[in-house]
Amino acid sequence: METVAGLACTGTTAGLKASGAPDLALVRVLGPEHTAAAVFTRNRFAAAPVLWSREVVSDGRADAVVLNSGGANACTGPEGFAAAHRTAEAAAEHLGIAAGDVLVCSTGLIGEQLPLEKLLAGLERACGDLASDEAHARAAARAIMTTDTVPKQAGLTLATEQGEVHLAGIAKGAGMLAPGLATMLVVLATDASLDPERAETALRTATALSFDRADSDGCMSTNDTVTLLASGASGIAPDPEEFARGLTALCEDLALQLIGDAEGASHDVHVRTVGAASEAQALEVSRAVARSNLVKTAIFGNDPNWGRILSEVGTTAAEYEPEHVDVSINGVMVCRAGMIGEDRSLVDLAGDRRVVIEIDLAAGPESAVIWTNDLTHDYVEENSAYSS
Amino acid sequence: METVAGLACTGTTAGLKASGAPDLALVRVLGPEHTAAAVFTRNRFAAAPVLWSREVVSDGRADAVVLNSGGANACTGPEGFAAAHRTAEAAAEHLGIAAGDVLVCSTGLIGEQLPLEKLLAGLERACGDLASDEAHARAAARAIMTTDTVPKQAGLTLATEQGEVHLAGIAKGAGMLAPGLATMLVVLATDASLDPERAETALRTATALSFDRADSDGCMSTNDTVTLLASGASGIAPDPEEFARGLTALCEDLALQLIGDAEGASHDVHVRTVGAASEAQALEVSRAVARSNLVKTAIFGNDPNWGRILSEVGTTAAEYEPEHVDVSINGVMVCRAGMIGEDRSLVDLAGDRRVVIEIDLAAGPESAVIWTNDLTHDYVEENSAYSS
Repeated sequence: METVAGLACTGTTAGLKASGAPDLALVRVLGPEHTAAAVFTRNRFAAAPVLWSREVVSDGRADAVVLNSGGANACTGPEGFAAAHRTAEAAAEHLGIAAGDVLVCSTGLIGEQLPLEKLLAGLERACGDLASDEAHARAAARAIMTTDTVPKQAGLTLATEQGEVHLAGIAKGAGMLAPGLATMLVVLATDASLDPERAETALRTATALSFDRADSDGCMSTNDTVTLLASGASGIAPDPEEFARGLTALCEDLALQLIGDAEGASHDVHVRTVGAASEAQALEVSRAVARSNLVKTAIFGNDPNWGRILSEVGTTAAEYEPEHVDVSINGVMVCRAGMIGEDRSLVDLAGDRRVVIEIDLAAGPESAVIWTNDLTHDYVEENSAYSS
Repeated sequence: METVAGLACTGTTAGLKASGAPDLALVRVLGPEHTAAAVFTRNRFAAAPVLWSREVVSDGRADAVVLNSGGANACTGPEGFAAAHRTAEAAAEHLGIAAGDVLVCSTGLIGEQLPLEKLLAGLERACGDLASDEAHARAAARAIMTTDTVPKQAGLTLATEQGEVHLAGIAKGAGMLAPGLATMLVVLATDASLDPERAETALRTATALSFDRADSDGCMSTNDTVTLLASGASGIAPDPEEFARGLTALCEDLALQLIGDAEGASHDVHVRTVGAASEAQALEVSRAVARSNLVKTAIFGNDPNWGRILSEVGTTAAEYEPEHVDVSINGVMVCRAGMIGEDRSLVDLAGDRRVVIEIDLAAGPESAVIWTNDLTHDYVEENSAYSS
């Protein structure tokens, strides 16, 4: 966020994690505008902070976002909701703003109450340490990490006719990357001047084409929250489509960072379906393949096992004739017309972290990609040896 | 099949597997009746032997079933279909029956042509070695194994008013256990007298309540085939409902053997949903939980992580109020009314291979169970280190 005027942030250690790692981030909108939009998990067991933040953002304004790792505050009932509410109130008191303008985001183990006193003490320190520099942005990105191995940040500058507009974001999420939204706490910030409606439209467009296409392990979190904050400090109101394109690029960058750091992954896998009758059908096919444990373990083993890909395509309702379907892996058409194509030994999966699977349905002009990763021993280890 | 009069079988080694393990089984219906029914994968990339066998069984009669491991003969085009056809013809010649009454089933790697000459040489030997004893039934069960660690057989006797009727079966399938049908080659045999319609009805009832409820890794095979052969040798035509109940019990036995030997599994997991508004909704919820890699890795780690269970329930469209949902693991209600229940440390997952997850939706009287297993290092190892 360092390049975005009108915003400040910080990260600190409240002591929510047994490891003693940083666990609390705060983002403050200084203005002059305080436009906000957010998209949330579609999980019906939405966490307490999601229930709270949905209300906060419904008027299109936010003054601050409090984010904690070390506990999801999900399935925690009225006590959990009170904790989210109290967190917003405490931030509001320290910052001289209204609690109803403070979003709260949490991530960590589901089904445990947060140690609220620790959180509030940490929050008070955070409120006294806000700044707009790179170090503070980095600290915020670090404080929301769970099983992430690296903090995720991105930024870009849009050159508009009126001048430059800046966008930046922080993100976390390496497990429970999901269908609706890769798990995720994401805060996106801009100094553009946006009204709430334009912010909402741009955010929905951008997330649909980025985080919604990242599917690491098919599991949808109870806590996913992607927030866009616009300070208006640039004084520039960019063309809505141009802004949405920029925001989409920013979100793509962050989504690919999430997939690139997914739990235990050794390959980033792009599952592209082309020749589909509709974009929805292309997505259905790509998602079915991206979710197959057999495909994902084969890629971990550097095995271009296209039969496992076709058998997933065969479970979908997309329009195609089996005898017209081609599958390429890293450019080698191992399956042609639903049958044996090039020799599978021509495919080298060991040489590069990135794998591109392309499925041509030969049924229309539409295409779509889902980004996923392989299924490895390290994924099993991380998710069996530790509660998260 | 040893206890089923009017049938004979055998297993042999045709040399289709690099390991040199047995790979070819043959089941012969001696009669006096030759009633047959079968259910097949719903995968749209159905393998050549599935396409062939669908036609064969459509008249309700079969005289023999040839089954091979060591190659799926799937995605092999016209050459693959010709191989399945030629296999049936060869069996028919040796046995003095019609090729149109010989089913063919294959399992193994997708996308490779079968070494047909080896297969046909093995088949000729098999045709000369048919018998109705236990040793031959065991040999047949062994010859269809792929990554199975043990052969699967089951048998039961129905005491009807007219006398005893016998049922027996062999099954294979330890990976690609599927939504529609756990992967599978299964041959069920009975000495009951059944007309084709009753055989079909009984088989559909039995598989819907057994193999369709086994979901090891969510992947649907191109080759699943479950065949019922009825010789009529007992001379008894049992009550249709009574027979269907017996057949269901036999199929349950085999399905649980499949789950119990699923690739790399260290726990058998029964995901039971109760209090559902409909059986379909109960199944939807159980299946969503059974397919979650995060739930499955947690169980491997002996971690009663109920948050991962609830978050899957939250992705379904089943009727329920989140604040009324209970979750028990091995009888301990770790989540009560959508919130923290009993202490999760009370759940012991290390002591027993079997884990029972019960989700109470508090929305109606219906229930259903899905049988699955955990996700382990050995699953990743088996599916990454070897093409299958």
